Amino acid sequence: MSNSNLKITKRSDDFSKWYNDIVAKADLAEHSSVKGCMIIKPYGYAIWEKMQSSLDRIIKSKGVKNAYFPLFIPQSFLEKEAEHVEGFNPELAIVTHGGGKKLDEPLVVRPTSETIIYDAYSRWIKSYRDLPLLINQWANVVRWEKRPRLFLRTTEFLWQEGHTAHATAEEAEEFTVDMLNMYAQFAQDFMAMPVFKGIKPAFDKFAGAEDTYSIEAMMQDGKALQAGTSHNLGSKFASAFNIQYLDENNKLQLVHQSSWGVSTRLIGGLIMVHSDDQGLRLPPNIAPIQIVIVPIFKSDEEKIEVLKATEDIKEKLGKFKVHVDDDANKSPGWKFNEWEQKGVPIRIEIGPKDLKKEKAVVFRRDEGTKEDVAISDLEKNIPELLSDIQTNLYKQAVKFVEKNTHTTDDWDEFKKIMDENPGFVFAHWCGEQKCEDEVKDATKANIRNIPFEQSEEKGKCLKCETVSDTVALWAKSY
Amino acid sequence: MSNSNLKITKRSDDFSKWYNDIVAKADLAEHSSVKGCMIIKPYGYAIWEKMQSSLDRIIKSKGVKNAYFPLFIPQSFLEKEAEHVEGFNPELAIVTHGGGKKLDEPLVVRPTSETIIYDAYSRWIKSYRDLPLLINQWANVVRWEKRPRLFLRTTEFLWQEGHTAHATAEEAEEFTVDMLNMYAQFAQDFMAMPVFKGIKPAFDKFAGAEDTYSIEAMMQDGKALQAGTSHNLGSKFASAFNIQYLDENNKLQLVHQSSWGVSTRLIGGLIMVHSDDQGLRLPPNIAPIQIVIVPIFKSDEEKIEVLKATEDIKEKLGKFKVHVDDDANKSPGWKFNEWEQKGVPIRIEIGPKDLKKEKAVVFRRDEGTKEDVAISDLEKNIPELLSDIQTNLYKQAVKFVEKNTHTTDDWDEFKKIMDENPGFVFAHWCGEQKCEDEVKDATKANIRNIPFEQSEEKGKCLKCETVSDTVALWAKSY
Repeated sequence: MSNSNLKITKRSDDFSKWYNDIVAKADLAEHSSVKGCMIIKPYGYAIWEKMQSSLDRIIKSKGVKNAYFPLFIPQSFLEKEAEHVEGFNPELAIVTHGGGKKLDEPLVVRPTSETIIYDAYSRWIKSYRDLPLLINQWANVVRWEKRPRLFLRTTEFLWQEGHTAHATAEEAEEFTVDMLNMYAQFAQDFMAMPVFKGIKPAFDKFAGAEDTYSIEAMMQDGKALQAGTSHNLGSKFASAFNIQYLDENNKLQLVHQSSWGVSTRLIGGLIMVHSDDQGLRLPPNIAPIQIVIVPIFKSDEEKIEVLKATEDIKEKLGKFKVHVDDDANKSPGWKFNEWEQKGVPIRIEIGPKDLKKEKAVVFRRDEGTKEDVAISDLEKNIPELLSDIQTNLYKQAVKFVEKNTHTTDDWDEFKKIMDENPGFVFAHWCGEQKCEDEVKDATKANIRNIPFEQSEEKGKCLKCETVSDTVALWAKSY
Repeated sequence: MSNSNLKITKRSDDFSKWYNDIVAKADLAEHSSVKGCMIIKPYGYAIWEKMQSSLDRIIKSKGVKNAYFPLFIPQSFLEKEAEHVEGFNPELAIVTHGGGKKLDEPLVVRPTSETIIYDAYSRWIKSYRDLPLLINQWANVVRWEKRPRLFLRTTEFLWQEGHTAHATAEEAEEFTVDMLNMYAQFAQDFMAMPVFKGIKPAFDKFAGAEDTYSIEAMMQDGKALQAGTSHNLGSKFASAFNIQYLDENNKLQLVHQSSWGVSTRLIGGLIMVHSDDQGLRLPPNIAPIQIVIVPIFKSDEEKIEVLKATEDIKEKLGKFKVHVDDDANKSPGWKFNEWEQKGVPIRIEIGPKDLKKEKAVVFRRDEGTKEDVAISDLEKNIPELLSDIQTNLYKQAVKFVEKNTHTTDDWDEFKKIMDENPGFVFAHWCGEQKCEDEVKDATKANIRNIPFEQSEEKGKCLKCETVSDTVALWAKSY
């Protein structure tokens, strides 16, 4: 299962090839024999499990409960909300036969679960006492993909989708924004990934939503990755599925809803934010292996001594995820390279000479530097170092974002940025889709979202120069 | 979302209706609008999460790693192993259209993942150094079901499926049996469910396996539920998918494989082993709520005092899953009933009078008994009580199994048992499918498995009276 013959392409030579090389070298995922569907390999899946367990804990702390709804959705359900079916129709996988027979009504493999979940909500919600209803689902979803890329765009992917129902429009809006803030905080604290929060232009919202909010992260090629979305669905689905409750005055009311999700796509973002030309770099908070220990020995006598010391160190660091690589068939140099490619935050090397000096060599993946640490100090130093690496990766990412984020309403300058050294640009926008289309045609950049925080100053639309008080975040994107 | 109008049917009146009532009253699951597919509701899903996290930890301790493989399988993959496709063909859901087009080759929604996983293994495994390969997947699977029953038989269900490849037949066999033992231990230690281990008759093995082993649990109606299976696949799939490795002598060899799984079906077993006419009874080791505290008060003054005491108790019991039910709209009596139906192992009631005496009332769901406990003793008593309830539920289940398990080769006695008071019967079997068919036609009982431990004594086949040295475990089954 090793990919040791492959060399990692340099970011500066071919960013896209570099990305593919990292995925292969770190053994994260591969294309399957089914077009568009990926295999998430054990190391990649372990990263997903870390992200999943952390986010799951946060979601539950908001009072949301997990549940599970069917994979299959009757086609007629999708059609109940006109915008929804129009948006998803081109991406659907359709089951026409089941149990050896042609089905009376074809079933859609869920591309998202609003319709099948809200059909249940219409039965479950009777009174204001049943509200708010806060449910989340971890599941696989299918959206047909013609140009698949591992993690970023695949026909099947894994995600969580939250679905809530509230008594008032205000509550639904508040919860929608809360969930976006939760994603931004998770991206920052666990993935060490700075993000930009904002609202999508009306023409780019989720099919069936009143409003869509997104977090956008900057990749090392200056392009944006939409890393999570939260939708205020208003009462659109409530009307379509007749989700009503008796309020305190015994009057029937439609509920107000939100839905929100993040997916395995985040792993693609993680790679493109933190990795370098040597391979993956993982933030300690989501690294399946936080510390790898490589014992170094030649004679059997050395082996016994070194392995004993290794086990002692492992035990001392018991609360962290420690892996001891004592594979006798591989050289220390091979192992150093392997674990650097896999992005393990800290490597501890220990050999007979180190032991004599009662020290070990500690390598930090984020900086690529080594230092000697007294073995007796490891228990104190390693936790601090992990915390420092987490912070440092975030700071490096913030620095990159700052360097590549611009503010201008000048069309020539904008074009020059997108042409020579793409990044994020804050620029005024008149609000017309026509202008966005023209910008996109000319530069491939589009509006990622409209930031929550807007300055008081008016400006001119980047494209048509109409006076505008709306600043949008523009970027090329995945 | 409450089901309070429903009364639970008595087990003795209608076991099947009793089961459905428990599922509804404990709010575990319901049928969806898609025929055959269930919705696992939050409380039912929380039980699954507890089972999943416990079993996942155990599986990982065996050196198995999680990964994720595609939902869709090309029809041609299934056809590569003749018995496999024949076994699964009648149960398949088929995707014929994707992304708005008719597919060149239809895709099967995975009914099990041997074929799609072993296609990958054929690429991953090159040398004996890549072995053993031990991988597990948590996923949804689809097997078309004409007579669905919640948890027990549904078109879509959730499960884990382990898939291993080994260098030798002996290793594969050993791992197959190891995994069966793991399931038996899990059933016993976490689900408080005694099981019978054994091998399936050849005509009842997994489609494509050399041998299938199962654990069988006895439900309270005396019927058997197959609670988990482990298959020795030999080199059948290895031949079909060309999974070969270079051995230490540089010779190409086929791998030897195992696959093994348990599913949400286990929740059905849990219900039918432990529940009573009052509702669900959950073993503490898999209860999402281990302790519910019901504060009792009338005046606002009482409320402040009681809620403070409640919070203190909750904090003291911090390492357990404690829920405080302080809903002001429901009476204490209503709550007692609700949490008994939901099977919460321990209820603590506390009111102003209790507080004055510095005690609380502790109710244990397994025995339905109450006792006064000094508040200062709770921190010591509750952990012991939880442990005692776990043990007691197991003992009760064992006692039931012992009472309803018989040993006889006498056909008339066998028929009488299956007719009047069905249970498990150890009886000799000649090895011919014909005899099993005749037994099944006459009594609806069949062979569940052939126990590992066989006595030295010969006997006569239950049906044809041929001399036999094989004892089989017979029962009616789900």
